Amino acid sequence: MDIQLIALFAAPTTAIVALLYGFFLSRRVLKEEEGSDKLQAIGKAVRDGAMAYLKRQFKVVSIFIAILAVIIAITLGIGMAITFLLGAIFSAVIGYFGMWIAVRANVRTANAAQKGLNPALKIAFGAGTVNGMLVVGLGLLGVSLIYMWAHFTFQSQGAEMVAKKATEVLVGYGFGAALLALFMRVGGGIFTKAADVGADLVGKVEKNIPEDDARNPATIADNVGDNVGDCAGMAADVFESYALTIVAAMILGGQMFGLKGVVFPLLARSGAILTSILGTFFVKAKNDKENPLNPLIRGFIVSAVSAIVIFMGLAVYLLGEPKAGFAAVTGIIAMLALLYITKYYTGPGEKPVVEIAGASRTGAGTTLISGLSIGMESTFVSVVVVAATIFVGYLLLGFYGISLAGMGMLATTGIIMSLDTFGPISDNAQGMVEMAGLKGKAPEVTGALDAVGNTTKALTKGFAVGSAAVAASSLFATYFEATGLKSIDIALPKVFVGLLLGCALPYLFSSRLIGSVGRAAFEVVEEVRRQFRTIKGIMEGKRLPDYSKAVDIVTAAAQRELLIPALMVVLMPVLVGLLGAQALGGFLGGVVASGLMLAFFMCNAGGAWDNAKKYVEDGNFGGKGSDTHKAAVVGDTVGDPLKDTAGPALNPMMKIVQIVALLIAPFVIALVGR
Amino acid sequence: MDIQLIALFAAPTTAIVALLYGFFLSRRVLKEEEGSDKLQAIGKAVRDGAMAYLKRQFKVVSIFIAILAVIIAITLGIGMAITFLLGAIFSAVIGYFGMWIAVRANVRTANAAQKGLNPALKIAFGAGTVNGMLVVGLGLLGVSLIYMWAHFTFQSQGAEMVAKKATEVLVGYGFGAALLALFMRVGGGIFTKAADVGADLVGKVEKNIPEDDARNPATIADNVGDNVGDCAGMAADVFESYALTIVAAMILGGQMFGLKGVVFPLLARSGAILTSILGTFFVKAKNDKENPLNPLIRGFIVSAVSAIVIFMGLAVYLLGEPKAGFAAVTGIIAMLALLYITKYYTGPGEKPVVEIAGASRTGAGTTLISGLSIGMESTFVSVVVVAATIFVGYLLLGFYGISLAGMGMLATTGIIMSLDTFGPISDNAQGMVEMAGLKGKAPEVTGALDAVGNTTKALTKGFAVGSAAVAASSLFATYFEATGLKSIDIALPKVFVGLLLGCALPYLFSSRLIGSVGRAAFEVVEEVRRQFRTIKGIMEGKRLPDYSKAVDIVTAAAQRELLIPALMVVLMPVLVGLLGAQALGGFLGGVVASGLMLAFFMCNAGGAWDNAKKYVEDGNFGGKGSDTHKAAVVGDTVGDPLKDTAGPALNPMMKIVQIVALLIAPFVIALVGR
Repeated sequence: MDIQLIALFAAPTTAIVALLYGFFLSRRVLKEEEGSDKLQAIGKAVRDGAMAYLKRQFKVVSIFIAILAVIIAITLGIGMAITFLLGAIFSAVIGYFGMWIAVRANVRTANAAQKGLNPALKIAFGAGTVNGMLVVGLGLLGVSLIYMWAHFTFQSQGAEMVAKKATEVLVGYGFGAALLALFMRVGGGIFTKAADVGADLVGKVEKNIPEDDARNPATIADNVGDNVGDCAGMAADVFESYALTIVAAMILGGQMFGLKGVVFPLLARSGAILTSILGTFFVKAKNDKENPLNPLIRGFIVSAVSAIVIFMGLAVYLLGEPKAGFAAVTGIIAMLALLYITKYYTGPGEKPVVEIAGASRTGAGTTLISGLSIGMESTFVSVVVVAATIFVGYLLLGFYGISLAGMGMLATTGIIMSLDTFGPISDNAQGMVEMAGLKGKAPEVTGALDAVGNTTKALTKGFAVGSAAVAASSLFATYFEATGLKSIDIALPKVFVGLLLGCALPYLFSSRLIGSVGRAAFEVVEEVRRQFRTIKGIMEGKRLPDYSKAVDIVTAAAQRELLIPALMVVLMPVLVGLLGAQALGGFLGGVVASGLMLAFFMCNAGGAWDNAKKYVEDGNFGGKGSDTHKAAVVGDTVGDPLKDTAGPALNPMMKIVQIVALLIAPFVIALVGR
Repeated sequence: MDIQLIALFAAPTTAIVALLYGFFLSRRVLKEEEGSDKLQAIGKAVRDGAMAYLKRQFKVVSIFIAILAVIIAITLGIGMAITFLLGAIFSAVIGYFGMWIAVRANVRTANAAQKGLNPALKIAFGAGTVNGMLVVGLGLLGVSLIYMWAHFTFQSQGAEMVAKKATEVLVGYGFGAALLALFMRVGGGIFTKAADVGADLVGKVEKNIPEDDARNPATIADNVGDNVGDCAGMAADVFESYALTIVAAMILGGQMFGLKGVVFPLLARSGAILTSILGTFFVKAKNDKENPLNPLIRGFIVSAVSAIVIFMGLAVYLLGEPKAGFAAVTGIIAMLALLYITKYYTGPGEKPVVEIAGASRTGAGTTLISGLSIGMESTFVSVVVVAATIFVGYLLLGFYGISLAGMGMLATTGIIMSLDTFGPISDNAQGMVEMAGLKGKAPEVTGALDAVGNTTKALTKGFAVGSAAVAASSLFATYFEATGLKSIDIALPKVFVGLLLGCALPYLFSSRLIGSVGRAAFEVVEEVRRQFRTIKGIMEGKRLPDYSKAVDIVTAAAQRELLIPALMVVLMPVLVGLLGAQALGGFLGGVVASGLMLAFFMCNAGGAWDNAKKYVEDGNFGGKGSDTHKAAVVGDTVGDPLKDTAGPALNPMMKIVQIVALLIAPFVIALVGR
């Protein structure tokens, strides 16, 4: 027993190690030079824009969070409200610092690119790893502290009481974290795509100036958007899945194996954090000519393989149940399969992407048709992987097996988040090299980094969707337990009605977000056109445009469009609750199922269009400037709000709906019945 | 009892009245003149193309059907195989004759348009009504004869035995009908859109010649496609929903009310057929200037209102249960609501369509984004209507109430099918006037008819989707009964896995169909380009292109792409059945839920893009030839395979999956278990 208690303490310790490693890396990144005055000025503009956005975002969000906290305190007790706030704060901190380091690393990467690949890669990936360590460190720390509190406070009342109390608190914590993740995803997603689409529509299409050209009044907003959308949103979202899956595994493990079953997920995750750290040491290019993707893959494989070893070892020697190891490894394999599927369907040079690029020869219509078809096919294949994971996990160890598979999917979160954040940093660095007009090695190095960053960013999306779906599925199981329902029987009409409404909600939600991007992008277009019209000398490069205006517009738009999707997600379960607890259960199943489909579909179709455009730009089917290219650009524009706004926002959305249902379940049962 | 038996005979009698009315109308249409030699030649080309297609289609399909019939005979008995063939033959006959009259009415409508609106409207709507009467006449005849056979053969063994035998036979009948509907929808959908997209991509975009220009080598194929896709496919599909809903109502009614409960749906439907016939008498324009939509609406309203009166009267005086009337009326209201929603989201001049047209000012990218957003929103709203219908029906009279609501939705099928077939006939007439170069009143009259035809065609799509969903839902209830399951509990992982796979299947299916259109359209483009390149004098109008080549290409493509989707739909339930009967139930729920979403989404987004393009062509936002117009054309091209191929094909697909599950259920239970 003593050994197990020591193991219980190992988790927060590892979490702190991860945070310290992140702190060390951030110090190292910040020590690097920012480069010329011009580079510094550009860096400052992006940094200021990003921070201004976050500040304003947090202002709006904190009002909403405060109101909700009061409602929660009144209806569910002050304890729940506090954990709700805690979750929200943790999530906000991760979003904030992840972005904080990204907007400092971008300019340093651009500067270091003048010296060669490795110096630039070290900064970009190092800053990415800061984000990765924040996510896993705080993720594990929060959960393990809460669990230890429950353990030592309620130990005397038996294991069941510990599990009950821990679950209660963790639901509040998860709600706060998920809600903040939703705000980050929605706000960031609208910001980034409105700026991107707006900048491209006038810059690339009307004025024929290249991407990231300093003459484009929306170019700073575009660069700010990369950070806002890809760092802050993704980090908060994955943090939340990370916390939810381990909670589910701990609770179910406790029921099946006692304390050992609780310790296993904690130790497994601690081990996985160490393997992620280990992996980061292998991220080093052999020389300046090596494709930067290779060292990243090396690091990732080291992490994944050593995680498998640790999971199996712990399962056999600590838990005495190899099946637990197999379940976790199933998750790792599923994660690899999802990465592979995403790579196949969206990767540059792969058959589907070449097919879309080829279809662009007959115009934008066929570009779109072929992308829709490929996106839908990829959805089916990805869903089969998720379904197989759930099924195999269940065959191995019942619900505990499913939750372990979920943990396995997230085993390499540390390094995956590093790869993801690496994307916007490289993208920004590439933009800054372009805007500052740096010559020599720099454009080539940042070009290569940017291309790889786009790939890693796209790959990690499939991972985020799949893990969110598994996290939401474990919540779904929790709902079933919490309500004491005997079944959620879709053969009953009211449950089937709940299922239909659940399937329909992701459509309404996505519709709103895609529409928001369209509206905000339209405002950006108007502003950019206005500047070109009224400020003389921009096109000749004699005067700088007023970058801050476009930033202001998208910042305001992102806030304005924030509340309605959030209200939708919080209120719909309440409305469906009027049909009873079982109908609400049908609704939850529908939200996960349909949300999963749409998320895969939108992320993959969008990614494929993006890379089809790049494939043409690389000189295929006529190359840049050809009619084929114009058609491919249309595909990319359509894919943008799908893959970077609506698709990713569905992840926290699925989770919030489940949590809201869990919170209101007692009221539904009392007032309406099962 | 005697009165009720007389009532039992009333149904086939009414069915025969409907068929005779259709026969009378077709005689009247055929008596009209075909016009000038040139018009006759064009009419013959379209007619020959359509008939050649159907002949080849039936050849391929009959092999598949024959193989299946043998398998069914071996595994399920010879009786089931015979009813399977019967259903397939009925469905084929409806598709065949619906098209037969349409390809004879089109040229006569074009010719009559020279005399004015009413003569042309009379032919186009008259021929449409022939199709409508075929659907409802054969629909009611088949079902009532089968029921009467069961009634008089098994009467002595009790009502339950009658219901059991009738269900058995009707499942086979439904399977044959649905499978043929699937082939018609898939083949017709690929044919029509490959021809349409192919003709437009070279004609409109590359060569700048108008639609239906006689110089375009794909123009005959395009006109053939309208008949093949919109008449044959739609008729077979709706025929099947029409049969399924009444079967469900009769079985459940028999359980609840005895023979009275069986007679009620039969008499209600007989009454509704008479009201549809009544409605057709009101379709007459007041003068040549009246918008042809108005008389159509007048006829429709007469049908709907008198159907409400009949339903309520029968419920109160025959059944003695007003709730049955309310349930049926709920269905009529739902159908009206779906028509209204479709009209709002896709209708010319409505806010969403104007918004899409406006978004086209900033290019095809924003056209697409705004259409996707609007399509998704319309999906949510439509699904709420379907969910509410199921819920209210259930509240009123349980499962019987749901099936009556489904019957109510299909109450006006007769006139709705007339309106739908009116679309391709008018479309063809308009094309023929253009190709034959008719002047005077004719272009104006057929232009007005075509515009209205487009509207009615689009409106009836929402109706087809909604009614297919309700029909599939009643089958879902039948599956539950047939398997003796206690619940289909999605809280069980294997059932949830079934649900996920069910939700994913419509994506794979749609992906395949959309891809097929892309591939076939590409072949058409190549052929059309080849003819322009190698046959001198086409562009100058000195030589006619070789129309038959394009027809051959799409005919072959449609057959080639037919088998894989059909196999998908038949084999997937078998594979999922390996997880047990309950998992298969989850799968069925997923297929209906997700199929419904995608079908609404694709039909509505496609319809909205179509009309946004027309709105621009009517001189808004720059009109024809402007950049806005080019962007709007891209939206229309993308929407085409969604709204006319994949979306409509999902209807029979949902139903077939349910029927296959019903057929294999005994084996699943015996071999795998519940």
